[in-house]
Amino acid sequence: MQRIDSSDNKKIKRLTSLKQKKVRLKENLFLMEGLKSVDEAISENALIDMILVSDHFMETNPEYCSRLEKTEYPLYITRDYNLEKCSNLKTPQGILAAVTIPDYTLVSILEQEKPIVILDGISDPGNLGTVIRAADAFGFGGVILLPGCTDPFSPKTVQSTMGSIIRVKCIDIDTGELDELDKNDYYIYGMDLSGTDMDDEKFSASKTAVIIGSESHGLSRDVIVKCSKLLKISMPGNAESLNASVAAGIVMHKMAVEIRGF
Amino acid sequence: MQRIDSSDNKKIKRLTSLKQKKVRLKENLFLMEGLKSVDEAISENALIDMILVSDHFMETNPEYCSRLEKTEYPLYITRDYNLEKCSNLKTPQGILAAVTIPDYTLVSILEQEKPIVILDGISDPGNLGTVIRAADAFGFGGVILLPGCTDPFSPKTVQSTMGSIIRVKCIDIDTGELDELDKNDYYIYGMDLSGTDMDDEKFSASKTAVIIGSESHGLSRDVIVKCSKLLKISMPGNAESLNASVAAGIVMHKMAVEIRGF
Repeated sequence: MQRIDSSDNKKIKRLTSLKQKKVRLKENLFLMEGLKSVDEAISENALIDMILVSDHFMETNPEYCSRLEKTEYPLYITRDYNLEKCSNLKTPQGILAAVTIPDYTLVSILEQEKPIVILDGISDPGNLGTVIRAADAFGFGGVILLPGCTDPFSPKTVQSTMGSIIRVKCIDIDTGELDELDKNDYYIYGMDLSGTDMDDEKFSASKTAVIIGSESHGLSRDVIVKCSKLLKISMPGNAESLNASVAAGIVMHKMAVEIRGF
Repeated sequence: MQRIDSSDNKKIKRLTSLKQKKVRLKENLFLMEGLKSVDEAISENALIDMILVSDHFMETNPEYCSRLEKTEYPLYITRDYNLEKCSNLKTPQGILAAVTIPDYTLVSILEQEKPIVILDGISDPGNLGTVIRAADAFGFGGVILLPGCTDPFSPKTVQSTMGSIIRVKCIDIDTGELDELDKNDYYIYGMDLSGTDMDDEKFSASKTAVIIGSESHGLSRDVIVKCSKLLKISMPGNAESLNASVAAGIVMHKMAVEIRGF
């Protein structure tokens, strides 16, 4: 474990600059914060660039820190306020890791032959993170982001995935690339208020994809034409729509129950 | 329409102070912001104490403002920066209303004989608002809050209900009051990882209640003993849990589909 004292240290500055998307893209790194998240990154064999702990964390978690020292990961300790500078949390947890942004291809996701969820114009980081977490819970093959979605590796999104970002295959594609799904025999559902009642649909093939649009704009026109069938969640009450992550969760749950064993 | 110019005006100060829970409780008022929300408050005949619009809103929505003038509601216009002072939004929408906090009783909620959702320790305003919105979408009888839940009339919660706060009956109760549900022949399910698989359960009675706990702590011990049956959402994947509002949405959707016609 190496000590970093100066807040002008290059590593501290680099970690701090990962708050910016352009730096994350350039460095190909994102931050995971908190003991649980760092622990998941380790157990999932994520490509960890470095781990930083604060003096306070070291004092309060000596056993965990000595376990960390036995790993192969570059480990640094710093003053509390330096870690706080790097942190994106209101209450920094004293430990964070810079992790390599995984480089999946659409083909590698489709080859798994598992259900996938596709998001169109989901701009809220909390909603995106929540969908990634649900995709992990239900064992989906991946989360595919069409244009207009927020960055899955932003601090807010990563935080709301509760560690799932490390397990769920998540990529950006252009709308045109949806044709790859068709070529790979995926059946594409789109969730849209003009669709038929989802309750009357029985999901069966594991090569099933569902596209969820934003709450305010729904599915884009150029996305709708790529869908084989449009479905809606019937709402007997008064609200016109559900939160996008709740709608996604409901569809994904039904897919998980009906398709099973993928 | 009366004009308010001074930022020292009592009404401006009062609206601004509604950001604080203690003031909301004392005044028995909360804020709804944006044209859509204010419009819903009007169409649902909510008890509106006053409506405030900004000069800019008046300029850009002259027809809507003249319609507002024909209503019975006290209507005020002020400089943009005064409205911004009262607002809780990052991008204030130029219109807001102070609305009376409705005073429902547990009995009035149970008498409707509709499914209800009960929340235990849900401290995130976005999650609470999202559940209230889903309860509205699925036509539930109400959302009941056990101790440890955040304030349903806080700005963040109200905003994430997307107007549903005005329609959904929402009250706080003590855990002991859950006995009222039993007396009124409600069947109480608790969502807990120790429960049986929800997929194997068929909801049938409209007098059904489901309790959702917090993601970190689950259901409290004193709440678990009030449940007739514990259920879990089976998660074949890797994440240990779902976001609380997603879990609630999945259960409520299943209840809406299976119970129907309530």
